[in-house]
Amino acid sequence: MLIPYSELFTAFQSILLSRGFSNEKASLSAKLFADASLDGVNSHGINRFPAHVKDIDDGIINPYAEPVLTGSNVTLERFNGNLGPGNLNAWFCMNRAIDLAYRYEIGCVALNNTNHWLRAGNYGWLAAGKGCLGICFTNTIPNMPPWGGKDPRIGNNPIVIAVPGDNEEHLVLDMATSQYAYGKLQLYEMEGKDLPYAGGFDIKGSLTTKPSEIIKSQRVLPIGLWKGSGLTMMLDLLAACLSGGNATRDIGQKGREYALSQVFIAFRPAFENAHDFMISKRNELVEFIKSSNLSEENSEILYPGERALTKRKRNLISGIPVNDNAWKTIRDLI
Amino acid sequence: MLIPYSELFTAFQSILLSRGFSNEKASLSAKLFADASLDGVNSHGINRFPAHVKDIDDGIINPYAEPVLTGSNVTLERFNGNLGPGNLNAWFCMNRAIDLAYRYEIGCVALNNTNHWLRAGNYGWLAAGKGCLGICFTNTIPNMPPWGGKDPRIGNNPIVIAVPGDNEEHLVLDMATSQYAYGKLQLYEMEGKDLPYAGGFDIKGSLTTKPSEIIKSQRVLPIGLWKGSGLTMMLDLLAACLSGGNATRDIGQKGREYALSQVFIAFRPAFENAHDFMISKRNELVEFIKSSNLSEENSEILYPGERALTKRKRNLISGIPVNDNAWKTIRDLI
Repeated sequence: MLIPYSELFTAFQSILLSRGFSNEKASLSAKLFADASLDGVNSHGINRFPAHVKDIDDGIINPYAEPVLTGSNVTLERFNGNLGPGNLNAWFCMNRAIDLAYRYEIGCVALNNTNHWLRAGNYGWLAAGKGCLGICFTNTIPNMPPWGGKDPRIGNNPIVIAVPGDNEEHLVLDMATSQYAYGKLQLYEMEGKDLPYAGGFDIKGSLTTKPSEIIKSQRVLPIGLWKGSGLTMMLDLLAACLSGGNATRDIGQKGREYALSQVFIAFRPAFENAHDFMISKRNELVEFIKSSNLSEENSEILYPGERALTKRKRNLISGIPVNDNAWKTIRDLI
Repeated sequence: MLIPYSELFTAFQSILLSRGFSNEKASLSAKLFADASLDGVNSHGINRFPAHVKDIDDGIINPYAEPVLTGSNVTLERFNGNLGPGNLNAWFCMNRAIDLAYRYEIGCVALNNTNHWLRAGNYGWLAAGKGCLGICFTNTIPNMPPWGGKDPRIGNNPIVIAVPGDNEEHLVLDMATSQYAYGKLQLYEMEGKDLPYAGGFDIKGSLTTKPSEIIKSQRVLPIGLWKGSGLTMMLDLLAACLSGGNATRDIGQKGREYALSQVFIAFRPAFENAHDFMISKRNELVEFIKSSNLSEENSEILYPGERALTKRKRNLISGIPVNDNAWKTIRDLI
């Protein structure tokens, strides 16, 4: 079914208000959840919202907590998230990084003791929307085997990189370091489909496109095989070491995923005509990649974030496609 | 054959001196080339050296040029590499980032108009050796098709991330964003072997492990398929926009690979006991990943940089394994 943005927003908002969120926090969190669904990321929008409310009800997320500055050094700041709502903490920290970038061309905020930031891309769109280059990444529970191993020892630590464009046509990369998220595997399994490309190993150690085999083995594939395995280790250590917070290993010892470490970096280059320069580099890249011959007759060459913007424009007009049951679950929470 | 480090170093040094390098520059560049081979990266060590000398002889690399500061803002500096030797420029810039990190916990140096930095990992080992977290990345000529396309429109832009450890046991990720470098494909082809995993598309658009098919199609695979395709676009734009330099598209228009853009970031967290904290997070991660069951009886779980350090220790004692012809080529240059 199709739900107007405002209706989704209002539903989220009223539920959060009922859970003790202040007006301001309920509105911001509702916006971030609704934005995720608006951009086609229901997995971290409407579909995730009930679990988020459960985390609040279980005391994993403290709706009253605020991030507190624990250290600063000109362009670098360190915050304790105090286990507040992960999306609000992340929004706050990217905004701080942007403020610093407006003053110093670069701002870096490291955050520990926070919760799942939900839709990662939101913080990239925020930075680009303010004319900044943005980078952020988070660690997670151990949910992926390291290359050469078969037990979960590394996270699929998402990373976001954003570059501003005109008319909201920012480039926003929003990716986990696993080839497919577990949510995506479940979706393919529900639909009885194979993955288009190998997404993990089966129980015998062979690469497979069968989602059920991967869910059974829990051996999802890092992007780029050994390369993504290494990359995600490094993102984890950067987040933990910069914030003085938990690494993936520590989070795994908690049983549930909380008290994460994250890093937010914004850049606002200030050489002469830097903004125009960025826009032209962005435009030239997009034009250049699209000038390639297609690999298949019906393939598309997209820039990172292009699909999200297309969906956003369409869904704003025609409503956001959501699962009937998901919407019923939300209304039952009101 | 096996060549002692000092002999390799001296050969490189004397050739560079003959090309107009100052004593200091010849020694540093010779060290960086020899270090690459010492760590087992002959592709950017001895095997690359003759092409480097040719670039000098052709005037692509100016041995007399120095990086010049073009802008600075507390923790961010911007340099013009003036088409000097790429390895010396990169070494200089990572050192500047480290100096800034010693003062401000973070330092970021953006460099434009530079040459190929040769062995990327060197700058990560440098940062970690000085107790810093390090990140650096570069763009390249277009050498990979974007996802959905079949013509080269994106670079395989290498990225390095480093985390310090005790006793030189740093974690240093050094990876290009293609699954296999062209050099690696050629190596497999020469040896008549298939790749262990798909490395690109054949001329018909099917994933293949045949190196010759990929060399024919020029369609190498980005790490993580569409994800690495997006990631490498973002690294390119970050490097170009922060340095005010060329993007991959611009470099492609030059015909030869020069006037690249690069970024160097160093962090030296200064919260209480930060250094010990970093070392313990590093040690815990290594212990944790190695505690996984192996995926196959003879597989190994390695941390990024582990293999390089093992080779370094061995090669320092027993000499550096190099190809006979490669060594002859070097001696002919003296």
